[in-house]
Amino acid sequence: MAKEVTKKQENYSQWYNDLVVKADLADNSAVRGCMVIKPYGYAIWEKMQAQLDRMFKETGHVNAYFPLFIPKSFLSREASHVEGFAKECAVVTHYRLKNSPDGKGIVIDEDARLEEELIVRPTSETIIWNTYKNWIQSYRDLPILVNQWANVVRWEMRTRLFLRTAEFLWQEGHTAHATEAEAVKETELIINLYADFAEKYMAMPVIKGRKTASERFAGAVDTYSIEAMMQDGKALQSGTSHFLGQNFAKAFDVKFATKEGNLDYVWATSWGVSTRLMGALIMAHSDDNGLVLPPRLAPTHVVIVPIYQKPEQLSQLSEKILPLQKELEAKGLSVKFDARDTLKPGFKFAEHELKGVPVRIAMGPRDMENGTVEIARRDTLEKKIYPMNQAVETVVELMDAIQDNIYNKALGYRKANTYISDSYEEFKEILDKGGFIMAHWDGTPETEERIKDKTKATIRCIPFDAPKEDGKCILTGKPSTERVVFARAY
Amino acid sequence: MAKEVTKKQENYSQWYNDLVVKADLADNSAVRGCMVIKPYGYAIWEKMQAQLDRMFKETGHVNAYFPLFIPKSFLSREASHVEGFAKECAVVTHYRLKNSPDGKGIVIDEDARLEEELIVRPTSETIIWNTYKNWIQSYRDLPILVNQWANVVRWEMRTRLFLRTAEFLWQEGHTAHATEAEAVKETELIINLYADFAEKYMAMPVIKGRKTASERFAGAVDTYSIEAMMQDGKALQSGTSHFLGQNFAKAFDVKFATKEGNLDYVWATSWGVSTRLMGALIMAHSDDNGLVLPPRLAPTHVVIVPIYQKPEQLSQLSEKILPLQKELEAKGLSVKFDARDTLKPGFKFAEHELKGVPVRIAMGPRDMENGTVEIARRDTLEKKIYPMNQAVETVVELMDAIQDNIYNKALGYRKANTYISDSYEEFKEILDKGGFIMAHWDGTPETEERIKDKTKATIRCIPFDAPKEDGKCILTGKPSTERVVFARAY
Repeated sequence: MAKEVTKKQENYSQWYNDLVVKADLADNSAVRGCMVIKPYGYAIWEKMQAQLDRMFKETGHVNAYFPLFIPKSFLSREASHVEGFAKECAVVTHYRLKNSPDGKGIVIDEDARLEEELIVRPTSETIIWNTYKNWIQSYRDLPILVNQWANVVRWEMRTRLFLRTAEFLWQEGHTAHATEAEAVKETELIINLYADFAEKYMAMPVIKGRKTASERFAGAVDTYSIEAMMQDGKALQSGTSHFLGQNFAKAFDVKFATKEGNLDYVWATSWGVSTRLMGALIMAHSDDNGLVLPPRLAPTHVVIVPIYQKPEQLSQLSEKILPLQKELEAKGLSVKFDARDTLKPGFKFAEHELKGVPVRIAMGPRDMENGTVEIARRDTLEKKIYPMNQAVETVVELMDAIQDNIYNKALGYRKANTYISDSYEEFKEILDKGGFIMAHWDGTPETEERIKDKTKATIRCIPFDAPKEDGKCILTGKPSTERVVFARAY
Repeated sequence: MAKEVTKKQENYSQWYNDLVVKADLADNSAVRGCMVIKPYGYAIWEKMQAQLDRMFKETGHVNAYFPLFIPKSFLSREASHVEGFAKECAVVTHYRLKNSPDGKGIVIDEDARLEEELIVRPTSETIIWNTYKNWIQSYRDLPILVNQWANVVRWEMRTRLFLRTAEFLWQEGHTAHATEAEAVKETELIINLYADFAEKYMAMPVIKGRKTASERFAGAVDTYSIEAMMQDGKALQSGTSHFLGQNFAKAFDVKFATKEGNLDYVWATSWGVSTRLMGALIMAHSDDNGLVLPPRLAPTHVVIVPIYQKPEQLSQLSEKILPLQKELEAKGLSVKFDARDTLKPGFKFAEHELKGVPVRIAMGPRDMENGTVEIARRDTLEKKIYPMNQAVETVVELMDAIQDNIYNKALGYRKANTYISDSYEEFKEILDKGGFIMAHWDGTPETEERIKDKTKATIRCIPFDAPKEDGKCILTGKPSTERVVFARAY
């Protein structure tokens, strides 16, 4: 192996961290809780961004950019929002440094204290709704369908690469509508878009549903989320879409003249996914050899490794490999010819497996004689010999096959680890081995809180497709009309 | 006119500001010095980004992401860097807020003071070189060719939309090399890349050259820039590429094992362009009717406006317009059919002129009868009637024609306003009417400073293509071997 990765079964958490660091995705920085996203990790994020951006634009959204800083007083305007976001954040208090009087380094210039502190945005509802006030006068100015790609900061105490970092990258959509119905429709459109992205591009099955009141976004009337199962049976919230009602319009006094000539507050939504998706992608598919990337998000689809002893063999092999590379590229694939002459094939194989390259082609002198290549797929680690003239077709077909296979594998895993339970004892046992539990709940925040305290499980969501079914709350025995998804979560 | 724009001749500065605000490119925000980039402005920036990103990748660069925050002590490591950047910046001192004891809003939690203050990055050399220390051990790890798309903050006292804002968006390249020659070559490659981008995409001619010592980037051994002339004859520095020598490698102790087995400090470059380019684009081409966008960066290439009295005429026109739109889109053009029924054609014409849409097609009942359309180009405001079956071909040709014409117009303007002068009196007169002056300079920072104090003109650059020519300094009369570019600048 190029670099030793901890086995998943031995220590799941260390396995994850090893993958992130050893596959060159990201690393911790000198700034507490902030990560460096390395080129290989960033290349995957760019592919996610490009696809999401395409999907946003296809549904009528446009991008814009709002300030990094939020005046402190803005956060207090929406009562529940301040509770949720004003606590752990980075506060800018000064705008100048000066040479230290003792000549050692630089210090804050106390004369340059800001009149009002600025908060590094933890999310941008407040600054954006303060801006929308100037953009919206009449129903003709609506809807506003704006998205922003940005960095945000939430001062997390315990951080983990991609999953929970002080600074992270994300997109945040902020839309404004003339009617409640239209805003609700937008909230639904986006959660469906996120689910499509997760399933079709990340190859990661998700459950769509509504959050309970206590898990709602601070300032939202309703929060929808997509929830995915990781390979330890824990849930990872992968995207949220919020119906904000008129809360922010009221907080920032954003009214519009309706078609009928009345004045009404504007209806709002907000929604986001972040670099947390990188963590989800890694944990959903990878194995003890490294990453397993879905072809639709892999920066490199195919790597070609020449097998040779003598330098002249490499040039002979190159004569066959270069046209093959061209042909594959003409099919829209990203292909890397790994001709590094200081490394052995076995080392290269391990490295590309670690990095999750979907398909590897190997070609040696015997292949030259026989007119063949060896094609290996990363997801199953299967290797097969193919006639050279079937290589392109085989690789193209493998792209879809691998994309489908890893989705189905993840779906199978989730199915195998999703339980229907009506017994609290069983519920606790299942949680200890990991998995989702469909159970009845009496609908109260108190019960939810008690279950969380005792088992560390939270209600991930009330699935949109949960069938109506009479039952009794798993903890209190009180009546319930549908099952919700319980799980421990990231 | 849809919205009144101040005439360029009357008040150049107000003209610029009107364009930015009234064409919906950007606006000031509630946070001092920070702007909101509105969807239309951001769409142009996205086109710039996409093209630059393509050019970076074609030359072997990859993207990554480094932390927003820089520990205060990092800034002091490189002596001249701290002088240039540690002064006017946003300083984070606390990481928590709490409810105010008087119950009114929220206040800083003094218990949550950071041990070391964090600076919001004004540029990222320090945090990046601190990271490169972990990435580089041997010559095999080199070169590193990394770019970052990010926001940065410099606490400017006097701000102007796009041209000088406290927060701005940019890309910053940071490369690491084994040899001085390779780093110098990279510095040159990038300044040429920037010049190509400015000339071929922004249609803005630029002068490439070397900055004088006093205009150099803080921490650089050498700074190259591209300088463009705006329509008031002032210069706008549009991009810089810095050869950093081993300065940052020494400051952060980044050494590598050479091929020969020695230890040496790594050689570095950094380079960037920012949302300032938006200001340059606006000022280089626009007129009293609004923006004039080069087709290669225009979010909408063609707008089609139907001219009609009665609703049934609109549906008849649509039957002709929709297939035309499809055909134009099939040519890769972005086409908008402006069928808004609450606005008159004249209002729409003015609005699309204000927004700089390169080509407008108008079609009315008489065109229906005659099988014609009216095609107007934004750059010259010329209108002509064409047979419908020539419309697509005409518009496609116009894209290149407009791109070339506005480049040539800007080049002509620069030529007409560039002077060779050997008289200090004349020099001052020229500056007052605006323009570039090619003049001799004795090579000392003292003379440069004296000229700046007296005339507000700076040496924009020493052009790469300046012919060797003996002469006398315009101020001191001391000997000089080449002319440099003097101008007042943004």
